[in-house]
Amino acid sequence: MIIGLTQMLHDDFGIDFHNPDLLDEAFTHASYANEHKREHLKYYERIEFLGDAVMQLCVSEYLFKRYPLMPEGKLSRLRAAMVREESFSKFAVECHFDEYIRLGKGEEKSNARQRPALLCDIFEAFIGALYLDQGKDEVVRFIQRVVFPKLDMGWYDQLLDHKTELQEFLQQSGERTIVYKEIGETGPDNDKHYAMEVSVDGKVIGKGEGHSKKAAEQAAAFQALKELRG
Amino acid sequence: MIIGLTQMLHDDFGIDFHNPDLLDEAFTHASYANEHKREHLKYYERIEFLGDAVMQLCVSEYLFKRYPLMPEGKLSRLRAAMVREESFSKFAVECHFDEYIRLGKGEEKSNARQRPALLCDIFEAFIGALYLDQGKDEVVRFIQRVVFPKLDMGWYDQLLDHKTELQEFLQQSGERTIVYKEIGETGPDNDKHYAMEVSVDGKVIGKGEGHSKKAAEQAAAFQALKELRG
Repeated sequence: MIIGLTQMLHDDFGIDFHNPDLLDEAFTHASYANEHKREHLKYYERIEFLGDAVMQLCVSEYLFKRYPLMPEGKLSRLRAAMVREESFSKFAVECHFDEYIRLGKGEEKSNARQRPALLCDIFEAFIGALYLDQGKDEVVRFIQRVVFPKLDMGWYDQLLDHKTELQEFLQQSGERTIVYKEIGETGPDNDKHYAMEVSVDGKVIGKGEGHSKKAAEQAAAFQALKELRG
Repeated sequence: MIIGLTQMLHDDFGIDFHNPDLLDEAFTHASYANEHKREHLKYYERIEFLGDAVMQLCVSEYLFKRYPLMPEGKLSRLRAAMVREESFSKFAVECHFDEYIRLGKGEEKSNARQRPALLCDIFEAFIGALYLDQGKDEVVRFIQRVVFPKLDMGWYDQLLDHKTELQEFLQQSGERTIVYKEIGETGPDNDKHYAMEVSVDGKVIGKGEGHSKKAAEQAAAFQALKELRG
């Protein structure tokens, strides 16, 4: 058993594994298993194979339901950004998973414990273990806490840029003149509210509001896209 | 509603959708929706995005559990073979899904209805619709009937070739001499049973039986791999 891991999962996430062997498998690197051949330890690769697919589905389902109007191409780009190595390795560190990996001596020396590819693997392996032990609903509960809040924290805003998307959409049919204009401002200085409209070749195609001019422009672009796509 | 589709699913698969709108969405191509703009039809792309991830997980979980000793690399190659366009398009035709796709006139003329890429999309979209309507267990029940039997029918035998795998495994440590030898033959002429052994550099490392010499060799190679991997 990996010392401290079950306790940490209990304390930090309220997760108690029925079968802690799955956790050992998820946090053991092949190099460690090789150095302890007599113990016939399982290492994380197979369980990571499963965890990868679990994450794909959970993230896909969340995005599908959260953004009912988002077209498939954008859903795919957003999913790709969320399930990539860079994201998962950050989640692994945030959850302190890096502290519990069982590594061979050579890998330890070469700083594998900080390597994003390994951290990403461990995160997926943990998800695979949690899925096998407790099912998809528990995985969703975990990533609702660790992964999904990043959407609201702006991690993926570049992909959620409706202004760029509107511009790309309109330019499919040649050059167009897109203009954003402020049409209102309400509230006291410390709680201003802005309204913007967006027009194409002189015709208004969307309006939006927000707590900043930028947010109001994004809302206007989003409404325009909704209208244009019918 | 697409004429005949719900009846076919009921008759052929015992599946009754609670929300048939999901089926309409899954079987409607963007070209058809474009030709019927006033009806504001949804088309399959978003639901296919979800179905793709559902299939990935269901196939991964099945392989993970069916082959408890298979290493990750082989699981990945097998999964890739099973979830690829060529496989899915065959499943779509086998299920008669091609007959129910709503296509625009131009696409129909260019024979899109027979195009593997489109058939694959429709199969995934149907899986997405079934998942949303009835959950993962029903999807598993469906693909247990349509997809998984292909493993036993030999569709993916090239990837399940244990002899090749044993050879590759042994050659990692230089050239080795691998010999298969018949060690027994039992049963009447119409129900022969063969036993084979495999040796490396003169030492026997696996034995296997089967209804053909080839099958017995595969079984011997599989046992050898199991031993060698500890």
